Amino acid sequence: MNFSSRKIELAVEQIARLPGIGKKTALRLVLHLLRRPALQTEDLSAALLDLRTNTTFCDECHTISDTNICNICSSPKRDKSVICIVEDVRDVMAIENTGGYNGVYHVLGGLISPMDGIGPSDLTIDSLLEKMESGEINEVIFALNTTMEGDTTNFYLYRKIKDFDATLTTIARGIAVGDELEFADEVTLGRSIQHRIPYEQSLPK
Amino acid sequence: MNFSSRKIELAVEQIARLPGIGKKTALRLVLHLLRRPALQTEDLSAALLDLRTNTTFCDECHTISDTNICNICSSPKRDKSVICIVEDVRDVMAIENTGGYNGVYHVLGGLISPMDGIGPSDLTIDSLLEKMESGEINEVIFALNTTMEGDTTNFYLYRKIKDFDATLTTIARGIAVGDELEFADEVTLGRSIQHRIPYEQSLPK
Repeated sequence: MNFSSRKIELAVEQIARLPGIGKKTALRLVLHLLRRPALQTEDLSAALLDLRTNTTFCDECHTISDTNICNICSSPKRDKSVICIVEDVRDVMAIENTGGYNGVYHVLGGLISPMDGIGPSDLTIDSLLEKMESGEINEVIFALNTTMEGDTTNFYLYRKIKDFDATLTTIARGIAVGDELEFADEVTLGRSIQHRIPYEQSLPK
Repeated sequence: MNFSSRKIELAVEQIARLPGIGKKTALRLVLHLLRRPALQTEDLSAALLDLRTNTTFCDECHTISDTNICNICSSPKRDKSVICIVEDVRDVMAIENTGGYNGVYHVLGGLISPMDGIGPSDLTIDSLLEKMESGEINEVIFALNTTMEGDTTNFYLYRKIKDFDATLTTIARGIAVGDELEFADEVTLGRSIQHRIPYEQSLPK
């Protein structure tokens, strides 16, 4: 592209490095910012810099946090003997939004994926094993996505921690609440039938 | 959403103010930036700030420019008696990329759109009339999009400048090079037939 301004060109280049944003979209965003009050761009620029400079990872659960120990790990209300293993902070946010979980998390920071060059040593697995060795963990809940990478990681972790004295569970898979059976895929419906629960447990408390 | 970090929340809020980007996409971008070296975020943040602070509009054609007079208007090679009227800098870039235009531009900065509260006084029409009054303009090329707003603006401008001693032209509309006739819409195909040109003119020079 032939830009009329070197500064537009630089901004477009930088924005287009973000995933899912090409040069045309980047240019659209740049033109939008130029039409808006300068304050909006200043706020955006400052928020990005602040984000990258001043966030850190929680020393305990490895989620992204403003402090060395995140709100969840530092809360006295959370049950630290129950650990839910998730891939990244988005999963933490999703589960927190349900308001139905009272344990803590362990954020792996990714999944084992030889294709992408990500091995077990790139994840926070050592830190998980340390927690297991402390003997204070009663339950580990696997909540990784059911992709090939998720299943591989699940199995790797399972072999590493199965001999510790903790219950290992995995989140329930089945037909989503409100979904219709006829449109469900066979694997999900199959699991849903296989792992059926007593009817009374499905009633609202 | 329930963010584990206030800084993530602020960054997501700021990014989600951009057009076409919702909170989920913004969060994906934020997590991407956090996984990358800090330098990338610093570069992005600086480029945005520099863009908004240090770009200006060309005094002559009103395109976005790093200098008071843009490269095109200040070039001695361009024919300043031919003005191409476009909506914004993207159109300038698109025409420049063809390498086939040697005149200058006049960027309106939008289109007349009563629905969006944009009237003639919000556009750079006064500046265009000044140029016309100088008597140095031989040709004005209308190159606005054929939307309702584009047509309204075209007609408004036409009435304002038709009495000046300059040729008024509009870019050719027709079947795109490489497109198949059977898939063309009737209006385009109709115009294409109506405004047919001598065969010799279509041969490569």
